[in-house]
Amino acid sequence: MSFWTALLGRPLKEREAATESIGAAEGLAALSLDALSSVAYGPQAVLVVLVTAGAGALRLTLPITVAIVALLALLVLSYIQVIGAYPQGGGAYAVARENLGGGASLVAAAALLVDYTLTVAVSVAAGVAALTSAFPPLLRFTVPLGVLLVAILTVVNLRGAGESGRAFLPPTLLWITAVFGMIAVGLIAPHAHPAGASSGTPPAALETVGVLLVLRAFAAGCSALTGVEAIANGVPLFAAPAVRRARTTEVLLGAILGTMLLGVAVLAIRFHVRPSPDQTVLSMVTAAAVGRGWFYYVVSLSTTAVLALAANTSFSGLPILLSLLARDHYVPHAFGLRGDRLVYNRGIVVLALGALALLVAVRGNTDALIPMFAIGVFTGFTLSQAGMVVRWWRARPAGWRAGAALNGLGCLATGIATAVFVATKFAEGAWLVVLVVPSLYALFRRIHRYYTALGAQLRLDGPPPRPEPRRTLVVVPVRTISRLTVAALGDAKSLGSEALAVAVVWSAEEGAALEAEWARWDPGVRLVTLRSQYRSVVRPLVRFVRSLESRGGERVLVLIPELVPRRPWEQLLHNQLGVMLAAALRGSRDVVVALAPMHLDADRRPPAAEAE
Amino acid sequence: MSFWTALLGRPLKEREAATESIGAAEGLAALSLDALSSVAYGPQAVLVVLVTAGAGALRLTLPITVAIVALLALLVLSYIQVIGAYPQGGGAYAVARENLGGGASLVAAAALLVDYTLTVAVSVAAGVAALTSAFPPLLRFTVPLGVLLVAILTVVNLRGAGESGRAFLPPTLLWITAVFGMIAVGLIAPHAHPAGASSGTPPAALETVGVLLVLRAFAAGCSALTGVEAIANGVPLFAAPAVRRARTTEVLLGAILGTMLLGVAVLAIRFHVRPSPDQTVLSMVTAAAVGRGWFYYVVSLSTTAVLALAANTSFSGLPILLSLLARDHYVPHAFGLRGDRLVYNRGIVVLALGALALLVAVRGNTDALIPMFAIGVFTGFTLSQAGMVVRWWRARPAGWRAGAALNGLGCLATGIATAVFVATKFAEGAWLVVLVVPSLYALFRRIHRYYTALGAQLRLDGPPPRPEPRRTLVVVPVRTISRLTVAALGDAKSLGSEALAVAVVWSAEEGAALEAEWARWDPGVRLVTLRSQYRSVVRPLVRFVRSLESRGGERVLVLIPELVPRRPWEQLLHNQLGVMLAAALRGSRDVVVALAPMHLDADRRPPAAEAE
Repeated sequence: MSFWTALLGRPLKEREAATESIGAAEGLAALSLDALSSVAYGPQAVLVVLVTAGAGALRLTLPITVAIVALLALLVLSYIQVIGAYPQGGGAYAVARENLGGGASLVAAAALLVDYTLTVAVSVAAGVAALTSAFPPLLRFTVPLGVLLVAILTVVNLRGAGESGRAFLPPTLLWITAVFGMIAVGLIAPHAHPAGASSGTPPAALETVGVLLVLRAFAAGCSALTGVEAIANGVPLFAAPAVRRARTTEVLLGAILGTMLLGVAVLAIRFHVRPSPDQTVLSMVTAAAVGRGWFYYVVSLSTTAVLALAANTSFSGLPILLSLLARDHYVPHAFGLRGDRLVYNRGIVVLALGALALLVAVRGNTDALIPMFAIGVFTGFTLSQAGMVVRWWRARPAGWRAGAALNGLGCLATGIATAVFVATKFAEGAWLVVLVVPSLYALFRRIHRYYTALGAQLRLDGPPPRPEPRRTLVVVPVRTISRLTVAALGDAKSLGSEALAVAVVWSAEEGAALEAEWARWDPGVRLVTLRSQYRSVVRPLVRFVRSLESRGGERVLVLIPELVPRRPWEQLLHNQLGVMLAAALRGSRDVVVALAPMHLDADRRPPAAEAE
Repeated sequence: MSFWTALLGRPLKEREAATESIGAAEGLAALSLDALSSVAYGPQAVLVVLVTAGAGALRLTLPITVAIVALLALLVLSYIQVIGAYPQGGGAYAVARENLGGGASLVAAAALLVDYTLTVAVSVAAGVAALTSAFPPLLRFTVPLGVLLVAILTVVNLRGAGESGRAFLPPTLLWITAVFGMIAVGLIAPHAHPAGASSGTPPAALETVGVLLVLRAFAAGCSALTGVEAIANGVPLFAAPAVRRARTTEVLLGAILGTMLLGVAVLAIRFHVRPSPDQTVLSMVTAAAVGRGWFYYVVSLSTTAVLALAANTSFSGLPILLSLLARDHYVPHAFGLRGDRLVYNRGIVVLALGALALLVAVRGNTDALIPMFAIGVFTGFTLSQAGMVVRWWRARPAGWRAGAALNGLGCLATGIATAVFVATKFAEGAWLVVLVVPSLYALFRRIHRYYTALGAQLRLDGPPPRPEPRRTLVVVPVRTISRLTVAALGDAKSLGSEALAVAVVWSAEEGAALEAEWARWDPGVRLVTLRSQYRSVVRPLVRFVRSLESRGGERVLVLIPELVPRRPWEQLLHNQLGVMLAAALRGSRDVVVALAPMHLDADRRPPAAEAE
């Protein structure tokens, strides 16, 4: 069993593909963790912005959180419509493609790719932060821990074991219960637990609070709303009646997430929590509410677990999106091929590399990723709501006005929010998203153009012609007369209409000697010697083959004799002239390059006297 | 002009190979810099060891230096004999090979490879230290400066401009004059210049001086003797009478190096110089002798220049040694091939990588490299002196007893020194050399065994047989019926006795549809469909080809149709099934793999409607 088989598992047969039908509660675990787990960084993102204006600004946390929860409610209502309209799964790409056309759908796809990658980076960073808050000595391993987590997620998903609502349910329920319990204890507690009293870095003294600050805090907090769309994408996963179950899950998600966001915000104000580089806000709130006892560790560890699972959902989402784009010829077709474990392994690897690059670039700091986050998701929200409005307008079923009004309101709100994000967070990182999304869009277009042209070139106009044989000249590069030469010339004689041996020599004497030896042998194949003034063997051969080619009419096959050693490392002992020649000839039109292997024998002991 | 051509220069013709005949003074610049420049780190190496036993131990510097200079004199006399005996160039490898047999010569070769690499690392580290001593703000760029210097040396030598005694002469003479001038001023000065008074870190108080300490200091100081053998290796470079000129250079080298070593040692004691991590001993001695004025900077900068040139000599030595080993089948033959610029480019790259690894591992600290240094050179010294003794004994010319006695004494002294090095510096780094040299020896043997067996397999016993054509079956993997398929089947019909198309399908329906389409087309080539239960396309094809192979008798040619896009990046848009299949089939005996390219046209705009 090879290393890769041990790591990734044996190849699976087609019919071994997993099928799972989930209920409403499992839907919460399988499709909503991205949204729910943002409680771990959303409120903190608001506080991080507000604290720059001093301690007084922190009381704005509550109204801003209320605004965010209101937007959440609007989104939930909007997506309940989407679920009804697209029971086959209504991702922003699909909805925009059907209703707004190719251009909008590609923008949505680009935005989603960026956001899936950011979701992994943010969730992993926040998961590690939850861990290091609980165990401060781990703080200096922040980056390695993040890399390790991504590596584990990658391997799990390459094995194809990544999607499992049922397996995710227990940790999800534990975490929801723990957070609700913590909030309840915190609200009824007479005062902050001493272990968490007045935590965090003291804020600056300045107290000017402007509109811009409020908008920036709101934009940062909206990172908590990412993932709300995931249920609408995954309707087909639900057991029948799928639409009803999916809607129930969506409502549950909205209720739980809204309550949690408000609860954490209220406790953060109550316990005077201020953001700190060493501890997350959720950790400080928890410590103030329940102390740093066993319950604190249940909250912290289940938070890490849930964030890791949230990152995992991107690992199923992004590869599927890439495979849809590959099917539509917008990304390399290779993304549409499943690997041995029936997963889109190339998409998984691309996602892992992107997330790792982000994590390492910001050294695992969640707060540095937040400004880039949410723009992509909100672009997707806006486009899919706009698509829904167009859809209502086109079909106009009973009650279409109410539906269109709701989706229109959602489109407007999320569109404004997107504009606010770009405007307020541009310098802190949003510029990267503003740069990457249009670049991806242009790349999709460019790739699509290539495939369209390729198809036109390969397409046969009318019935395919009967393939006809052509005269073929087989050229064999040789160096000396050895068993390899004899075998290669035998192949050459078998294959073409005519065979020709070519040798590169460095002096007239060398050439004459080889020609004389050749004449004595008389193999029935003509020898051409090429005198080279330079050291390169490859260049004169390529030039010679090109000159034959330009003669035209016949097909040229270059047959390169090649020794294949038994052990791979022994390859290093052969100069790779054959492979180099093959690579150099790839640029030539109308030349078929063949490598004729001569396998070296297992018994490699020479017959006699090897020891000196 | 490509990037590489711009960096490394255009390819050279054979007859453009440089030829240079040098005189005695130029011999000093071309062949002795490795030895001479060790004044920059040899005395410091002695002080670094002695200072661990307190300030009092430093007075041992002079007797130890006298012992080192005595050994130098013995080596110079020994090598004068070697020069006479081997006017064609008497490297340790050649002398040991002729007189002591293959085993000893391989040990010498392994030791020399290690030492060439260490010479580059030590010279570069010391050169950077000379520079940072003069310009302390550069201190934190120690590692990048070292890497830059190695990179420059690599490029210069890959261009083939590395060897030039004439060009090296001016900086060498400037440096020798400057150091002698500094020593003279230092000796006659009434007291230390205030700029350099009592420099260096104060030593520890402990004052126990044992035999082991003296031996360790002696061993460290012997690093100053590396490179004494280089003139004997390069006798053919000298103009006639080459032996006499080479001997003059050897004597000059001994006199200059001995005087410098003694001078620096005397001044170091006189000015109470103690080693420091921030400044070299030579820099402190110079500052104390002449102050930190212009003359100080002349000494420092010419020291850096001379050390860089000393590192450069390894760049000509190691690749030549590797080419000799390649000719004798002890290292991969590729090391025996000259590149476009007529230099052994692979050897240059290997040396650069080895030196970089050492430099980075010790973070550019010369003192950390010294314990590894010299063991290799002294092993070479010992073996070549032993070889000379054997040679005297075998030929017994007039006066052979005196010659044998001298070389015997040299052999004994350097042999003892080698043992002392290994014993005293084992824990500080010598273990690495003790590990690497035997490993290299074993590797040489292993490679030689491989090539011997290979030769036996390729050699024809008796006159070569006439190559005979064989029945050939051409197998073409196909996926759909397109222009590519038509072209590939045309090639297949041209090449073999029989052609066969193979397609991998994932369902019975897919297979039936393709077969029906094939029957309508009727290309005159049979189609076989392979039903795959797994996702892999490559595995079923390989299995099918292997099954044909085992049928025996006929030769199988697998003709893989392949699209070649016009621009390299477009390659990414094609899944590399062809290349993967070719790689997977390399393991099959008796199968020729051919890639039949179909070049995509320059005009890639499709005829119509591309925009959606």
